[in-house]
Amino acid sequence: MTTHEVPGPVHRMWTTRHEPVLEVADGDVVTFDAEECSAGQLAAHVNGAEPPALDYDLLYPLAGPITVAGAEPGDAVELEVLDYRPGTWGWTSVLPQFGLLEDDFPEYHVHRWELQDGYADFLGAARVPLRPFLGVMGATPDSDEPLSPFPPGHFGGNIDTRDLVAGTSVFLPVSTPGARVLLGDPHAAQGDGEVCGAAIEASLSGAIRIRLHKGRTIPAPQFRTPGPLRTGIEDRGYFATTGVAPDLMRASQDAVRAMIDHLVRETGLAPLDAYVLCSVAVDLKITEVVDRPNWVVAAYLPQSILV
Amino acid sequence: MTTHEVPGPVHRMWTTRHEPVLEVADGDVVTFDAEECSAGQLAAHVNGAEPPALDYDLLYPLAGPITVAGAEPGDAVELEVLDYRPGTWGWTSVLPQFGLLEDDFPEYHVHRWELQDGYADFLGAARVPLRPFLGVMGATPDSDEPLSPFPPGHFGGNIDTRDLVAGTSVFLPVSTPGARVLLGDPHAAQGDGEVCGAAIEASLSGAIRIRLHKGRTIPAPQFRTPGPLRTGIEDRGYFATTGVAPDLMRASQDAVRAMIDHLVRETGLAPLDAYVLCSVAVDLKITEVVDRPNWVVAAYLPQSILV
Repeated sequence: MTTHEVPGPVHRMWTTRHEPVLEVADGDVVTFDAEECSAGQLAAHVNGAEPPALDYDLLYPLAGPITVAGAEPGDAVELEVLDYRPGTWGWTSVLPQFGLLEDDFPEYHVHRWELQDGYADFLGAARVPLRPFLGVMGATPDSDEPLSPFPPGHFGGNIDTRDLVAGTSVFLPVSTPGARVLLGDPHAAQGDGEVCGAAIEASLSGAIRIRLHKGRTIPAPQFRTPGPLRTGIEDRGYFATTGVAPDLMRASQDAVRAMIDHLVRETGLAPLDAYVLCSVAVDLKITEVVDRPNWVVAAYLPQSILV
Repeated sequence: MTTHEVPGPVHRMWTTRHEPVLEVADGDVVTFDAEECSAGQLAAHVNGAEPPALDYDLLYPLAGPITVAGAEPGDAVELEVLDYRPGTWGWTSVLPQFGLLEDDFPEYHVHRWELQDGYADFLGAARVPLRPFLGVMGATPDSDEPLSPFPPGHFGGNIDTRDLVAGTSVFLPVSTPGARVLLGDPHAAQGDGEVCGAAIEASLSGAIRIRLHKGRTIPAPQFRTPGPLRTGIEDRGYFATTGVAPDLMRASQDAVRAMIDHLVRETGLAPLDAYVLCSVAVDLKITEVVDRPNWVVAAYLPQSILV
């Protein structure tokens, strides 16, 4: 077993054209520093100030490609998360024409977070527990043509799945020889859904063990968690709102709108701030998807985060 | 505070035409026996035998309407679940043209469960922990015309939400004077999503405290849970599959198909039986609903249920 620091340069697209930066063997560990996805553009942002203009071409600096010796299409690579250590600050944005409630919140907004002792205070109204993970973990799809880093796919990529924290093993289907793994988009905390379009976006240092599973053919990412998911978060239970609608997207929107109303009433937060808090701490579940024509989506707020 | 046993007759539709069977005051407790939703049609079913013909007109016997003194449209009623005690047996059906994977599993199938010591054994492959709740809790919508009990709505009804267990308070919007609460469709266990279309359907005896919240106007059901959600279920963590697709329904289907494949490989269950197990024990979460054009739904299997 060998440990490798992943060298640069970073890459921002999915394509087999990228020159691999590292090759590892089954069982090797990689360590890396993953920069938050604005690549420093929001580092000087002062909370409450007018947001700066973003250069979208600089978003999503990803470490890799890392090739895995012997990996072939039809195999799976396992990324076992050993350790994630977030930095001292983070940000959450609401972007125009982006996010679950883009029609309700059409303007650009940035919240800057200070990360301390495993928590991020939110405007004196909430204390968000940090659970760092990578938003982007993928094995490059079989495409010469560069593909945007924004949408996830069967290969993984920007899957923004909050439970991919330390201790979890993520399994990715291999689409090209060597797998060509890219890693990045670190999040210090996020709710299931990432409803405003961003998590607490914060750089982190990480260590991941890479394993190769020959002949394990899977259709999309899978993962295994080591134990309970919300220890230290759910001690005071949840308050949950629901959306009931013939479309899961609409049901999700209605559930989050009701949660924003609840947070505004309970905490005095402005609706836009409540939306941000939902994105980093509220979980969306599909509670019923069979009682035609109406499905139910519920938004779960862990009550312990309110101060 | 008074305790009332809810008298008959049961009702099967949502309409303001039903004569109320009981009136309660704010804070009163109701006790009731809720019959499983086939109303006894599957009581004699022997597991593995050919399923009997179902009379759909007999489905969903519901207790009530219970009127709440002083309740008016614009208020909310709170149903605090004090106690649920399931019976000794239950069933789960797969019905033609019904369920998340109706195209994959087109034929009628019934599994009968024996419920013992808080668990239901499943074909020697899994042990499902019982977490009883009511699939149907609603305050009658403002409709003279009888409405089917199958679809849920903003008034509640067949919301099939697994976390509505003892200790949880459910808040329902009041649509008509007196609220006219109906209760039923008891489930001994269910996963979020209820993907095959049925839970472990099993009669139970229950006790619920009813409170009235004047002027608390909510758009759809909400609920508050008292503490951690999966204690005793998630000690060995989860195995999760994902679906990545531009439609949440398709993503849900793909996640469950991948989970069925996983269960078949890990346990040797037949695909149809794995589908049933998903419905009663696997949870659907929306992990990402903003990275256009692809959303991610994950299906979570608690590993402790496999034997």
